[in-house]
Amino acid sequence: MSGIVVQNILRADQGEIEGLAACGVATVHEAQGRTGLLAPYLRPICPGFRIAGSAVTISAPPGDNWMLHVAIEQLQSGDVLVLAPTSPCSDGYFGDLLATSAMARGCRGLVIDAGVRDVRDLTQMGFPVWSKDVFAQGTVKATLGSVNVPIVCAGAAIAAGDVIVADDDGVCVVKRAEAATVLAKARAREANEETKRKRLAAGELGLDIYEMRERLEAMGLRYV
Amino acid sequence: MSGIVVQNILRADQGEIEGLAACGVATVHEAQGRTGLLAPYLRPICPGFRIAGSAVTISAPPGDNWMLHVAIEQLQSGDVLVLAPTSPCSDGYFGDLLATSAMARGCRGLVIDAGVRDVRDLTQMGFPVWSKDVFAQGTVKATLGSVNVPIVCAGAAIAAGDVIVADDDGVCVVKRAEAATVLAKARAREANEETKRKRLAAGELGLDIYEMRERLEAMGLRYV
Amino acid sequence: MSGIVVQNILRADQGEIEGLAACGVATVHEAQGRTGLLAPYLRPICPGFRIAGSAVTISAPPGDNWMLHVAIEQLQSGDVLVLAPTSPCSDGYFGDLLATSAMARGCRGLVIDAGVRDVRDLTQMGFPVWSKDVFAQGTVKATLGSVNVPIVCAGAAIAAGDVIVADDDGVCVVKRAEAATVLAKARAREANEETKRKRLAAGELGLDIYEMRERLEAMGLRYV
Amino acid sequence: MSGIVVQNILRADQGEIEGLAACGVATVHEAQGRTGLLAPYLRPICPGFRIAGSAVTISAPPGDNWMLHVAIEQLQSGDVLVLAPTSPCSDGYFGDLLATSAMARGCRGLVIDAGVRDVRDLTQMGFPVWSKDVFAQGTVKATLGSVNVPIVCAGAAIAAGDVIVADDDGVCVVKRAEAATVLAKARAREANEETKRKRLAAGELGLDIYEMRERLEAMGLRYV
Amino acid sequence: MSGIVVQNILRADQGEIEGLAACGVATVHEAQGRTGLLAPYLRPICPGFRIAGSAVTISAPPGDNWMLHVAIEQLQSGDVLVLAPTSPCSDGYFGDLLATSAMARGCRGLVIDAGVRDVRDLTQMGFPVWSKDVFAQGTVKATLGSVNVPIVCAGAAIAAGDVIVADDDGVCVVKRAEAATVLAKARAREANEETKRKRLAAGELGLDIYEMRERLEAMGLRYV
Amino acid sequence: MSGIVVQNILRADQGEIEGLAACGVATVHEAQGRTGLLAPYLRPICPGFRIAGSAVTISAPPGDNWMLHVAIEQLQSGDVLVLAPTSPCSDGYFGDLLATSAMARGCRGLVIDAGVRDVRDLTQMGFPVWSKDVFAQGTVKATLGSVNVPIVCAGAAIAAGDVIVADDDGVCVVKRAEAATVLAKARAREANEETKRKRLAAGELGLDIYEMRERLEAMGLRYV
Repeated sequence: MSGIVVQNILRADQGEIEGLAACGVATVHEAQGRTGLLAPYLRPICPGFRIAGSAVTISAPPGDNWMLHVAIEQLQSGDVLVLAPTSPCSDGYFGDLLATSAMARGCRGLVIDAGVRDVRDLTQMGFPVWSKDVFAQGTVKATLGSVNVPIVCAGAAIAAGDVIVADDDGVCVVKRAEAATVLAKARAREANEETKRKRLAAGELGLDIYEMRERLEAMGLRYV
Repeated sequence: MSGIVVQNILRADQGEIEGLAACGVATVHEAQGRTGLLAPYLRPICPGFRIAGSAVTISAPPGDNWMLHVAIEQLQSGDVLVLAPTSPCSDGYFGDLLATSAMARGCRGLVIDAGVRDVRDLTQMGFPVWSKDVFAQGTVKATLGSVNVPIVCAGAAIAAGDVIVADDDGVCVVKRAEAATVLAKARAREANEETKRKRLAAGELGLDIYEMRERLEAMGLRYV
Repeated sequence: MSGIVVQNILRADQGEIEGLAACGVATVHEAQGRTGLLAPYLRPICPGFRIAGSAVTISAPPGDNWMLHVAIEQLQSGDVLVLAPTSPCSDGYFGDLLATSAMARGCRGLVIDAGVRDVRDLTQMGFPVWSKDVFAQGTVKATLGSVNVPIVCAGAAIAAGDVIVADDDGVCVVKRAEAATVLAKARAREANEETKRKRLAAGELGLDIYEMRERLEAMGLRYV
Repeated sequence: MSGIVVQNILRADQGEIEGLAACGVATVHEAQGRTGLLAPYLRPICPGFRIAGSAVTISAPPGDNWMLHVAIEQLQSGDVLVLAPTSPCSDGYFGDLLATSAMARGCRGLVIDAGVRDVRDLTQMGFPVWSKDVFAQGTVKATLGSVNVPIVCAGAAIAAGDVIVADDDGVCVVKRAEAATVLAKARAREANEETKRKRLAAGELGLDIYEMRERLEAMGLRYV
Repeated sequence: MSGIVVQNILRADQGEIEGLAACGVATVHEAQGRTGLLAPYLRPICPGFRIAGSAVTISAPPGDNWMLHVAIEQLQSGDVLVLAPTSPCSDGYFGDLLATSAMARGCRGLVIDAGVRDVRDLTQMGFPVWSKDVFAQGTVKATLGSVNVPIVCAGAAIAAGDVIVADDDGVCVVKRAEAATVLAKARAREANEETKRKRLAAGELGLDIYEMRERLEAMGLRYV
Repeated sequence: MSGIVVQNILRADQGEIEGLAACGVATVHEAQGRTGLLAPYLRPICPGFRIAGSAVTISAPPGDNWMLHVAIEQLQSGDVLVLAPTSPCSDGYFGDLLATSAMARGCRGLVIDAGVRDVRDLTQMGFPVWSKDVFAQGTVKATLGSVNVPIVCAGAAIAAGDVIVADDDGVCVVKRAEAATVLAKARAREANEETKRKRLAAGELGLDIYEMRERLEAMGLRYV
C-alpha cells in the first residue's frame, strides 16, 4: 500500500485557515468538541509560533526520508508538511537543507512524529517545527513511502488537505470539510471568553460566573 | 473521601516564605536534609521564575478541573496552587482564564502533576507554572475532588499550608512548621557556599578545600 | 574495576577540535558515517551553544558525585567533562560550585547521563551542559568511581581524549585518532551543502538536484 | 461530536475472520504491506491467545467507562471491543463484571489503549485483553463518549467492523473491505514460509535461499 | 532527617488484614473511595499472589540497600517490607539472600519503588515482590536511610503499620486506623457484585441493571 | 564505517562459558565489580532460561534486518546473537524463520536492543530472546550494517567474542579475556553466599552476620 503520491488534493479556504491560526490550538480543539489534538509529546523546537496550513501528508519508513523530497514537490504556498513514520522512530528526517527547499515552496512548517536536526538553523530561518525528538541521526533514501495518503500522526488521523493548527500548546487537526464550522464556533468561543476574562480579572469567581455553587452543593461538596 | 474543602488553613510566616524563595530549590532541599523534592518531570513552562508560597492543595479527578474553581476561592495573596490528579493524567486543567482568576486573588503560581494549556498567554501574563505536560486537551466539570486535603504531588507528600519553593531546578516542599528552621539552615549554607565559590573561582580545588585527598587514598583510589 | 584515575591522556589537536566545533553535531555525525551520536534524551539546559573539547571521562556511582572533584583536577583548558553513572540515575551531580571550579580550569562544558542543578546559575555563567535531567536532588561522596577510563555515556562508547562535539542538536563523539579525517570529511560535506542550499533556496527540487526521479520510478512510485 | 451510538455496522465474513486469526498478527501485518499494527505498548494480560473479531469501537472520556455498558449492548457473537480514551489514560476501565457481561454476548476479547483490572479473574475466565496498563484505578460514569465511530487506538485508525487480529505479538487491524484479499495473501505467505522453514531447519542459509550474496557484494559488504 | 529507626509501630488487627487480602486490590481501592493505589508501574515479578500485611517502611538512598538489613530486624510475622528510594533508582536492592532472611522473620512480601534481582530464586522460594524494575545492578552499604518513617512509595503516602494489599492488579495501601471500616465496605461491595455477576452472566445488560438508559438519554446520547 | 563482516573472532573457553551460565547474571555482575550489565529494559520474552555464549555482534540500520542473515553464517555452536540498531528502533527484526536458521547453526539465543516477533513460536521452539520490545513490525533488507564489530547494546560496550550471560534478571557481558578470572570470583562468591544463606534461613540477622551494628551506630543511626 505504499509507493503512492496523490497529486491533486483539496484544501480549505485560505481565509478560514488564517482564522483558525488566529484562534490557536486550545480554542480550536474546544470548538470542535475537544477532538483533533495530536499527542502532547510533539513539542515546538522553538516557542512563539502560531500557524495553520493545509496538510501535505507523508507516510515514511523508519529512518528513511526519501519521501520528503517527493512531498516538497507537492507543496503549495501555505501548506504544512505532516510526517508519520510507519513504525516508531526518533531519527532526524529533516534539517536545514530540506527546510530551505520547503520554504522556497511557501511551506509554513513541519509536524513530525519523529526527529529533526539543525534546530539552530531552523530557528534562525524562522521555520517552525513540532517534533517528537531533536536528534541528529541521519536517514537513508532506500525504501518508498507515500505522499498525501491518510496517516495517523501522534495519535490523530489526518487526511491530506486537513487544516493543521499549531502553537506553543501543541498541534490540532481540523477536517477540511469542517473548517468553516469550526472557525465559527472558535470565534464565538473567543468572544465569550473575552467577557469572562474581564470579570475574572476584576476578582469575580468562576464559582459565581458559571453558577457552580448550587450544583457543587447538590453533588455533596462539604466546606469544613 | 473526596468532596471536602478545608477552609481555614495555617500558613507559614510571609517573611520566611520570601526568604525561602530567595534561597531557591537546590539550597532549600539541601538545608532540610535532601528531602522534599518533587519529581524532575515537573518542568517550568517558562524559565526564569523563582517563587515561594503557601500551598492550596487540590485533589482532582482525571480530566476534571472543577475543583480549581473551588480552590481559587480559598486563595490568599501569596499562595501557590498545587494540583494532583487522583490517577495519572496529562490533560490541560488550567489555562489563561483560570490564571486570570488566580492572579486576581494574588496567586503566585501553579504546580500541577498534569497538563496546562495557553502557555503563551500564561508566559505573557507572567504567571509561572510547573507542570508534567503542556497539552491543550480540555477537561470536564462532572466529579468532585477535594481542596486543602493532604495530597501526593509528583512523588512528594504535601499538606495545605506547606511552603512550596519553585525555580528552574524544579519544585520543593517545606513543611509549614519547619519553615523557620529550614530557612536558617539554608541561609547558613548560602553563606558557606559563597566562601567556597570564591576559592574555587580562584583555582583552588575541591579536593583541597574539602580535604578529600586523604579519604580518597584510604578508600583505595589509585592514580595511574 | 573502579577507583582508578588515569592521569596522562592523549588529546586531539586543538585546531582540529575547533574545526569540529564549527561544523556542528549533524555534519560531524554524517562525516563519520552516521556514527557517534549520544542518545537524544541528552538535551542542552540552555540553547545556543556549539562546543567541542577533549573528553575527561567519569564513571560515577549512582547518586555519588565524589569523582567530579577528582576529575576537575585532571582538566586541561579546552576539555569537556563527560559523566556516566554506573546505573541509571537522575540526581543533580553538578551545580554552580562545581561549574565555578571547572571553569577556573578552562573546562568548556559538561555532558552527563544524569541530572544537574542550579541551571539558572549555570546559564548565567555561560557554562553549557547537556544532561538527561534537571533535578535538584543532592548527591553523596561515599563510594569511589573512576576518571579517564572508557565509559558508555547515553549509548555511546567514549574514551578519555575523544573529541566531544555538542550543540542544540545533541552530542556526538569523534574518536581521537580520527579527528583529522572526520574534520576533512565534515568540511567537504559543508562545502557541498552550501551549493545545494543555494539551488534549493532558488526553488530547485531535491528530486532534480539529486536525480531521484528515475530511481523512484524504478522502485515503483506511482503518481495518482 | 461525542454522544453517538452507531447501531448497524457491517462486519466481515466470519470465515475470513477465522482465517485471519489462524494466520496471526505478524503474517497478517506482512500480508497487507506492513500496515495496520497497533503500538507495541499494548500487551496481552496473559500469553497464549490468538483471536480475531469484528471491532465494536468505543471512544471514551479519560477515567469514564460508561460507554462500555453502551457498547456491550451492540456486541454480536464474535466481536472484539476496542476502546480508545479521548486523552491518554491508564485507569482500569474494565474488570471481571464487564467481562462477564461481554462474554455473555459472545465477545472474543478487548483491546484497550488504557488500563484494565481484575486481571487474575479475567485470566481464569479465559477472556483475553490487550491493554496499555494493568491498574486497579476505578472510573466514573459521568460523561458521554461514542460507540462504533472511527477511532485511533494505539496509533492505528480503526472503524467499526474492521477485523482485529491479536496474539502474543500484539494487535493488528484489517480494514473490513480488505479482509478477503489480506487473508489470501496471508495464506500464500504462510505456504511460502513453510518451505523456507524446512530448508533453514536443514541448515541452508538465508543468504543462499534468498540469493542475497550478490546484492550484498554489490552494495559493498566486505568480509575481513 | 534520615538515620532513624522507629521500633514500636502499631499494626492493624491480623484478622482484618487477612480479610483485606481476600478482597483484593481492586475491591479494597473502591471500598475506600478510590484512593490508596500505588502507581501502575509497580508490577509483580511473578503472577498469582494475593497478600496483605503491615508495612515496615524503608526510606533508602539511591543504590544503597543498607537499611534493608536494619528493617528486617524490625519485622514481625505477617509484615510487608515497603521501600522507597530518596531519588529515582532502578538498582536491584533485594535478592535471594535478603528474601531468605525476611522469610525467616515471617515477612509476607516486598513492595519496592526500585529494582530487585534473583527473580527466579524469589519465585521458586514463593516470596512475592512488586517492583518497578528487575535489574541485577548491585548496591552499596555506605549511607544511612530510615526505617518505619512515613514515605511516599510509587506515588502513595505510606506510614509504618498501614496495611498493604497486593495482587496481580497492583498494590494498595489502607491506613491502619481505617482497616476495619474499609474491610466492612469491601465485603459489602463483594456481596453486591456477586448478585450483579450472576445477572450479567445470564445476559442482562448493565444498562438495565444499573438503570442507565434514562440518564444516558437525558445527557443526549443518540442512537443512529 | 558499516558494511564490514569480521569472520574470525576469538571465543572464550567453552567450559568457562558454561560455568558463567551456571552462576547467573547477578553473581557474574558482582564478581566483575558490578560492571557489564545491559539496561533493565531488556526483558526475556519467556522466563526460565539461563544461558551463556560467545557474542556474534550485529550493528544494524533501524528497521533493516539484512545483517541478521549475514551474521547467522558466522555463528558457531554455542554463540549468542547480539544486535544493536544504529538508532533507537522497536521493529521486529527477528522471528521464527530466523530462529529456525540460527538454531540450525547451534545458536543459544538472541539479545536485541529492538523488537522481535513470533514470540509464541520462539517460546515453543525453546529459543530464548532478551529484547526491548515485542512488535510484529516488519523490516526491510536495503542498507548494510556490520557483523562482529564492537557495538553498544542497551548501554553496554560489547565486542565480538565477549561472553554474554542472560537469565530472568537480565543480561550481562564479560570481556572475553576476563572470563576465567570472573568465573573464579563468581564461584567464590557463590560458595560464600551458601554459608550466609543457611545462617539467614536459621534466623540470624545480616546486621550480625556482616557485623554492621557498630558501623551503623558510628554513622549516627538512632533507634527511637
